[in-house]
Amino acid sequence: MKKHNFSAGPCILPQEVLQKASEAVLNFNDDNLSLIEISHRSKPFVEVIEKARSLALELLGLENKGYQALFLQGGASLEFLMVAYNLLDKKAAYLNTGTWADKAIKEAKAFGEVVEIGSSKDKGYNYIPKGYTIPEDADYFHCTSNNTVAGTQMKDFPETNIPLICDMSSDIFSRQLDFEKFDLIYAGAQKNMGPAGATLVIIKEEILGKVERHIPSMLNYQIHIDKDSMFNTPSVFAIYVSMLTLQWLKDLGGIEFIEEVNNKKAALLYDEIDRNPLFKGIVAKEDRSTMNATFTLTDDSLKEKFDSMCKEAGISGINGHRSVGGYRASMYNALPLYSVQALVDVMKSLSPS
Amino acid sequence: MKKHNFSAGPCILPQEVLQKASEAVLNFNDDNLSLIEISHRSKPFVEVIEKARSLALELLGLENKGYQALFLQGGASLEFLMVAYNLLDKKAAYLNTGTWADKAIKEAKAFGEVVEIGSSKDKGYNYIPKGYTIPEDADYFHCTSNNTVAGTQMKDFPETNIPLICDMSSDIFSRQLDFEKFDLIYAGAQKNMGPAGATLVIIKEEILGKVERHIPSMLNYQIHIDKDSMFNTPSVFAIYVSMLTLQWLKDLGGIEFIEEVNNKKAALLYDEIDRNPLFKGIVAKEDRSTMNATFTLTDDSLKEKFDSMCKEAGISGINGHRSVGGYRASMYNALPLYSVQALVDVMKSLSPS
Ligand SMILES: Cc1ncc(COP(=O)(O)O)c(C=O)c1O
Ligand SMILES: Cc1ncc(COP(=O)(O)O)c(C=O)c1O
Ligand SMILES: [Mg+2]
Ligand SMILES: [Mg+2]
Ligand SMILES: [Mg+2]
Ligand SMILES: [Mg+2]
Repeated sequence: MKKHNFSAGPCILPQEVLQKASEAVLNFNDDNLSLIEISHRSKPFVEVIEKARSLALELLGLENKGYQALFLQGGASLEFLMVAYNLLDKKAAYLNTGTWADKAIKEAKAFGEVVEIGSSKDKGYNYIPKGYTIPEDADYFHCTSNNTVAGTQMKDFPETNIPLICDMSSDIFSRQLDFEKFDLIYAGAQKNMGPAGATLVIIKEEILGKVERHIPSMLNYQIHIDKDSMFNTPSVFAIYVSMLTLQWLKDLGGIEFIEEVNNKKAALLYDEIDRNPLFKGIVAKEDRSTMNATFTLTDDSLKEKFDSMCKEAGISGINGHRSVGGYRASMYNALPLYSVQALVDVMKSLSPS
Repeated sequence: MKKHNFSAGPCILPQEVLQKASEAVLNFNDDNLSLIEISHRSKPFVEVIEKARSLALELLGLENKGYQALFLQGGASLEFLMVAYNLLDKKAAYLNTGTWADKAIKEAKAFGEVVEIGSSKDKGYNYIPKGYTIPEDADYFHCTSNNTVAGTQMKDFPETNIPLICDMSSDIFSRQLDFEKFDLIYAGAQKNMGPAGATLVIIKEEILGKVERHIPSMLNYQIHIDKDSMFNTPSVFAIYVSMLTLQWLKDLGGIEFIEEVNNKKAALLYDEIDRNPLFKGIVAKEDRSTMNATFTLTDDSLKEKFDSMCKEAGISGINGHRSVGGYRASMYNALPLYSVQALVDVMKSLSPS
């Protein structure tokens, strides 16, 4: 039987997408060739990448609004660097909501002044800082919509006149937002989109071309745009599976539909965490992530018992990140409600002795 | 029926590897989870990447000799940049044997003086420059072992006291070389190793740490070495398939074995090109690549006929690169001898009218 996969990323993907991906590895498009042994410049693959790019914009409601969608390599970590390389002229503002934001800040510092306008580092990133002020003379403001590690999520995004840049690696396509507010969104594919190995970058083209420094070709957004996201050989398989997953989401009813499901899943689990005296949540209630729910046992001596009950029930991937401990149940788009129910059932049946 | 796949890259992979990869997308290790939905830090995947890294060194005879193997993202094109970022202090020497060497040169120029010590650009890169001198005061010498586009291949590599760096994207693992001569070898996976989306970098650790500039984390070889090639989420699927392909090669008898097969395939095709008055080779005979054979028809009016005969015979991917024209038959490790025979049979049966 298939496991209940709560992995934080790479993570669960829709079963029908896995089925199609598996078939394409043997015979793609009924053309008697594998998807992974055809030229990336062949018509069938160009169609795949173009479809993936347009589905991404369509699902976000960003078609024909000056945005471009790119599928690059290097993960979100390379975007920490590319954002600064392409956009940081003198000064940039960052919100530090966790490990990943912290790494983005570290990479940016080599390119100019970095102002950390808010941070929740003091409390192990267990909340989202609020009431911060964005300096109007910064080149951009960078934030992380969802802290995958601690399990916090930004519910509001500030109004600002400077470019708004967001690392949405762990909650892109999971909820409706006013995406037009953002000038650059990036996300490693390996959560709500596909396998590891591709990064989606959504960029409002007009924000480019404002720094003087030389930008190496592979790090230059404008070059990737000019080359239709095929400056060099792209990550064919990861892009194909992303395209299938985006199509799956569109067929279901898009972000509007999946947001409701995600809210139901999150409510089911958080309600049990709150109700059950044997569990407690880790982060501030109003900042709880719908994607990654973190919690601990109130009595550590129950750990072995709870872990073995989870294993018995086919529940996989709920160990907390090594920097936080406890448990983390990741409930990405492809995780069915019944998997959350299975976890909640185990929590309910855990007895104090 | 499976086609005869002469694609220049991404390209043919062993059928048994495709079979295993297809299965792993549904159920990896009989663990009821897909390979692409498990954590890259889980034991099963850590074993995969470690095995891929050690197989790469083992096949090249570079184990326990101060080398590290990394599987990075970004393709060979990102290595054009990383090589210069990590190693170019004042001056570097490059041999310009084609489009890819030319791009490597372009990226390096932003980091210091680049001396082009030889070039075959004057004749459309249809030969390998010889008799060049490597300046002893350069930080390194960079060359491209096989020009995938024009179909030339370096048969000898110079003796030098400065670090020898080689882009082996299109002929790594295809022939025996004194690999210890090289200090850094890189190759996009998508020829002799696996699908697009991973890049193999083999690096002699002692050459690092000699430049002063700040090197961003994702571009820093030392950081990737220190993190066992897992600084961030690696390209899981591409690395898994590379591991399978390297294991396939080892089981066959390694590079020693495949080199003989590759020589037979190349001899079969080049003999026909030379024998048959309707075809002629494009590059200098002594520099002909065993991987990519380029040729043209001596009578262009036969093109339509030849193309349809090829199609009829299930021959795929032999169009020349758009910058060269004519035909290019790529004969990577996984291409069976019978596929070359099929092409030669068609060439033999082509009649002048
Ligand atoms: C929010 C966030 N940003 C960035 C990253 C880093 O992504 P990658 O490993 O693709 O570089 C992650 C990885 O989990 C993440 O969750
Ligand atoms: C010799 C050589 N170097 C570099 C490249 C560029 O590789 P990538 O597309 O992975 O960046 C290629 C691609 O075909 C190549 O053949
Ligand atoms: Mg704005
Ligand atoms: Mg409770
Ligand atoms: Mg040497
Ligand atoms: Mg001839």
